[in-house]
Amino acid sequence: MARTDSWENLVKGVINGDVRLMARLITVVENRQPGWQEAMKRLYPESGSATVIGITGSPGAGKSSLTASIALKLAEKNLKVGIIAVDPSSPFSGGAILGDRLRMQKLFTCEQIFIRSMATRGMLGGLCHAARDSARILDVFGKEIIIIETVGVGQDEVDIVKTADQVMVVCVPGQGDSVQAIKAGIMEIADLFVVNKADKPGADEVVADIQSMLELSVEADQSIPSVIKTSVVNNQGIDELVEQLLQARQKGFLSREKESLRIRAEMKTLLEEEIFRTVSRVWQDNEILEQLVMEIRERKNDPYSAVQAMMQVYKSDKN
Amino acid sequence: MARTDSWENLVKGVINGDVRLMARLITVVENRQPGWQEAMKRLYPESGSATVIGITGSPGAGKSSLTASIALKLAEKNLKVGIIAVDPSSPFSGGAILGDRLRMQKLFTCEQIFIRSMATRGMLGGLCHAARDSARILDVFGKEIIIIETVGVGQDEVDIVKTADQVMVVCVPGQGDSVQAIKAGIMEIADLFVVNKADKPGADEVVADIQSMLELSVEADQSIPSVIKTSVVNNQGIDELVEQLLQARQKGFLSREKESLRIRAEMKTLLEEEIFRTVSRVWQDNEILEQLVMEIRERKNDPYSAVQAMMQVYKSDKN
Repeated sequence: MARTDSWENLVKGVINGDVRLMARLITVVENRQPGWQEAMKRLYPESGSATVIGITGSPGAGKSSLTASIALKLAEKNLKVGIIAVDPSSPFSGGAILGDRLRMQKLFTCEQIFIRSMATRGMLGGLCHAARDSARILDVFGKEIIIIETVGVGQDEVDIVKTADQVMVVCVPGQGDSVQAIKAGIMEIADLFVVNKADKPGADEVVADIQSMLELSVEADQSIPSVIKTSVVNNQGIDELVEQLLQARQKGFLSREKESLRIRAEMKTLLEEEIFRTVSRVWQDNEILEQLVMEIRERKNDPYSAVQAMMQVYKSDKN
Repeated sequence: MARTDSWENLVKGVINGDVRLMARLITVVENRQPGWQEAMKRLYPESGSATVIGITGSPGAGKSSLTASIALKLAEKNLKVGIIAVDPSSPFSGGAILGDRLRMQKLFTCEQIFIRSMATRGMLGGLCHAARDSARILDVFGKEIIIIETVGVGQDEVDIVKTADQVMVVCVPGQGDSVQAIKAGIMEIADLFVVNKADKPGADEVVADIQSMLELSVEADQSIPSVIKTSVVNNQGIDELVEQLLQARQKGFLSREKESLRIRAEMKTLLEEEIFRTVSRVWQDNEILEQLVMEIRERKNDPYSAVQAMMQVYKSDKN
């Protein structure tokens, strides 16, 4: 690895606001390349000032256009914005929809906005870690608001938006029973509902559906999430939505308790990742493996004892 | 724990053919209660003479009735049979279907047959270990043929049948494109196909479907699995099926290479289980955890370092 690519150098780049080095560090961390842990350890204490907004909703709900509109509006207000797109259907990660080209172009050329799309598979630490760690890097880099856009379908995606400070769920009229279609797990962590494409018929019914559902499910001591109607085409509701997001940002949304829960959750998954890596290492290093298998086959040894013996070898290895 | 429940005593019970103690040991091993490892280490060298048959197929394929018929037929031939039912829809683990009552009654009162059903979740070591270890216990107990019945849907179930010496996949006519419905992973490890409910229309088509699929997928040096039509109601094909199973048993189906692969797979999952258990222990020690979470919240520590520290605690833990 060239000296310029050492983790120390990449971290320095992030702190000094070098976009190229910052993007490279995201790749290193995503792929769990050597030095990723050291880099994240070094960056962590500097992180924590950005607000992370998770946006989710079914494909076709117009999340990307909404994300673009929000980002541009925030940039107008002189805020620095990062976008992490983990939605495979997102125009950020693929080809943009024709009608959206202008908006997207504006977005991609806006200096205050950094966009990163993420492959949805093959990541060693899992998508959830990749998104969280990337958001942290963007935070230290100086982004003030980071939007993570994801499709609310798999468990992976639910886990991702859970790492956000504020979760926004996007619904649209005309997607059948769209409220029912949203996964229960997402519903419960939503801080804000957006009924997008409000120019289409049926928007008010969707709003009513969400509200009645919320009244049923929200407990007495909880605040009821807002429901906002938006239409990107008509530029409707975007100002209100951005206002809401900024107000929530000023208040700060995370209680101490919620933050502790989140840290625990992160540690647990990091721990699992670490275990998995350890097993792979023990497994690959074991010269005695062949010998053990032979002994077990001949019933001179057993798998239970053999595994314990392998663990002892690993434990005595101090790396 | 009472002296009679010590693992030494339970193991002695298994070797002496005490059904009550044997069943209790299965519970101890399933739940990873103290002594389970010692017991399995002690039993392993004695195991290996039984033949394990894995039966899988979609729900409603009549696997349980077929299993019952096979078991009764084997018992008639003076063979000692064990049944492990990990199929949640199995009458062994739930209520028997009305028409099957007589057969089931006969089965449950047959002294040569031991039936154990298994919960499908909440097992520490995973279902796969529970099934494999139970089969091993039944083997040492003296069962000559052990049938593991499972639904071929989840990865868990595929892993279970993979531990068997011979894998039998059950299809039925009239389940739509039933051959396609069988998971690819199962297809490849099948040693024998059974088209059950052959009294129903469409059985021959299913046989033809399977055969053409096998011709396409089986490589030149492999033997093509047999396809047998059965009908439990008409007592059709059961004799032939049992003959096949017994012939394969006499030949012995596992090559040295296949056995080594299997041992490796078992060791790998045992290793994961082992590490997971130790880390859980560290995790449950809440004083360390609380302290770490507080430090991380205050950014005096970071999750990456904290997790590595936890792994170190684990390494230095000599239990």
